Amino acid sequence: MKADAFECWIRAELETVEQALERWVPVGAPAGLGEAMRYAVLDGGKRLRPLLVLASCAAASGARAAALRAAVAVELIHAYSLIHDDMPCMDNDVLRRGKPTVHVRYGEAQAMLAGDAMQALAFEVLTPAATDDDAVEPALQARLCGLLARAAGYEGMAGGQAIDLASIGQPLPEPKLRDMHRRKTGALLQASVLMGATCGEVPVRAWNSLSGYGAAIGLAFQIVDDILDVTQASETLGKTAGKDLDQNKPTYVSVLGLEGARRQAETLRQRAHDALAGSGLAQTACLGLLADLVVDRNS
Amino acid sequence: MKADAFECWIRAELETVEQALERWVPVGAPAGLGEAMRYAVLDGGKRLRPLLVLASCAAASGARAAALRAAVAVELIHAYSLIHDDMPCMDNDVLRRGKPTVHVRYGEAQAMLAGDAMQALAFEVLTPAATDDDAVEPALQARLCGLLARAAGYEGMAGGQAIDLASIGQPLPEPKLRDMHRRKTGALLQASVLMGATCGEVPVRAWNSLSGYGAAIGLAFQIVDDILDVTQASETLGKTAGKDLDQNKPTYVSVLGLEGARRQAETLRQRAHDALAGSGLAQTACLGLLADLVVDRNS
Repeated sequence: MKADAFECWIRAELETVEQALERWVPVGAPAGLGEAMRYAVLDGGKRLRPLLVLASCAAASGARAAALRAAVAVELIHAYSLIHDDMPCMDNDVLRRGKPTVHVRYGEAQAMLAGDAMQALAFEVLTPAATDDDAVEPALQARLCGLLARAAGYEGMAGGQAIDLASIGQPLPEPKLRDMHRRKTGALLQASVLMGATCGEVPVRAWNSLSGYGAAIGLAFQIVDDILDVTQASETLGKTAGKDLDQNKPTYVSVLGLEGARRQAETLRQRAHDALAGSGLAQTACLGLLADLVVDRNS
Repeated sequence: MKADAFECWIRAELETVEQALERWVPVGAPAGLGEAMRYAVLDGGKRLRPLLVLASCAAASGARAAALRAAVAVELIHAYSLIHDDMPCMDNDVLRRGKPTVHVRYGEAQAMLAGDAMQALAFEVLTPAATDDDAVEPALQARLCGLLARAAGYEGMAGGQAIDLASIGQPLPEPKLRDMHRRKTGALLQASVLMGATCGEVPVRAWNSLSGYGAAIGLAFQIVDDILDVTQASETLGKTAGKDLDQNKPTYVSVLGLEGARRQAETLRQRAHDALAGSGLAQTACLGLLADLVVDRNS
């Protein structure tokens, strides 16, 4: 696939995802809750996770209507985690995607509730009624809910954030740092790939390959985040740069150095491409280019 | 059913529910997260929602293994909402079930994460693998996830809490107060009843009756809560009494007066019994006695 075609694909898919978010994140939620939810998730973000879901669904020749719901659900989980992560009792951050964070704009209580409601909404989106025009087969709904819940929960994202909390000011050896990142960021990125894949029917070998691909880009994403945190300005990132250093958090840069972290990201990029090559699936070009995007991004 | 038999049933079911919670709320979650989750949900609480699930499943001659998972899931959602509700940015409460609240014991960040992980865990519990010895039919998993997500989200519990937040110091007319309570407390209680029912196969008429029963006891529960808040001591409640008054929150007592609120609770008790009588289901004795328990409780 040419880079041009990839950019066209991204643009088209982003429009689809934005429209779906616009449709499913409620305008009508009571007492300002809907406004806070929409502020948090609309009109911002790279939408990497939705793109992974859709690319993986395409590779698996899966049901696109289901994948679009999965794409929205996984982005809702991601966006809720950012709201809670930014709150004063966690990272206490005031800037996100170039805008004031949700608690700065709407207050802490509303921010917490908006995050809570967005986690629930993710599972609402995954379980449409049989009468909806884009109904999803019930067994597929159940598989999607199961994958998402496990990625979001104590074994995944929430568990990773607990380790993150506990590790402030603690030097972590690389295996523990990897475990933290695998949970905190990697689990949801990997789940995005697998949720896309489960919208189709892929043989075990392809499933395992996609799982390996997801694990590789999941870790690469976080390593690149660590690199960007020290090399980029806040304006480029749309969030506060240099934060990890300020908070004395262990990162791949603090453990491996800047060059070591870059080498590690390259190794993972190669691992991701190798996994795709070994999957036996035909349509993996977008997944491959997304892996490159994860490593080459500058924000 | 004699009152004695009802007490035996409650004792037996409570033991089953406690064992299930003990099994499914993880010991091994990282960095103290599991400890906070277990502190929040084990060894405390009336378990009204799980009892409603199990009684409703029995009335619908449903699959008990699935209902037990539903019972645990709904209690996890309830317990997570209490953690977040007690936090300083919300109700700022220090006492719950006679113990220090989770954020007092483990800090605000861990409390928020524990709540977040418990919401995810609810959906993990509802989506067991096919290889689990108590596997649940996938279509039933999907129905349970859908019911729970909608009860927990912006249309239900989270939406009700947003109204609650916005209503502090505002006199609410009775219909708005009812809408707030229907969402904040009623939605999850009603969902408990419907999740139990969907573990079996009930005709539409019975489904609608159970839905009406759930709505009646859901509102009754909150009215009784409002009554107990002004009539009982903190020791009896296991939480801070008189809080609504202190915070100048609208309640059924402030809107209808104590006697008016009591009359309203009696009306709803009768409505719940009438709904059961009209359901055409045979085994509704426990549901009926649970309605009485909701209205007659003193904590």
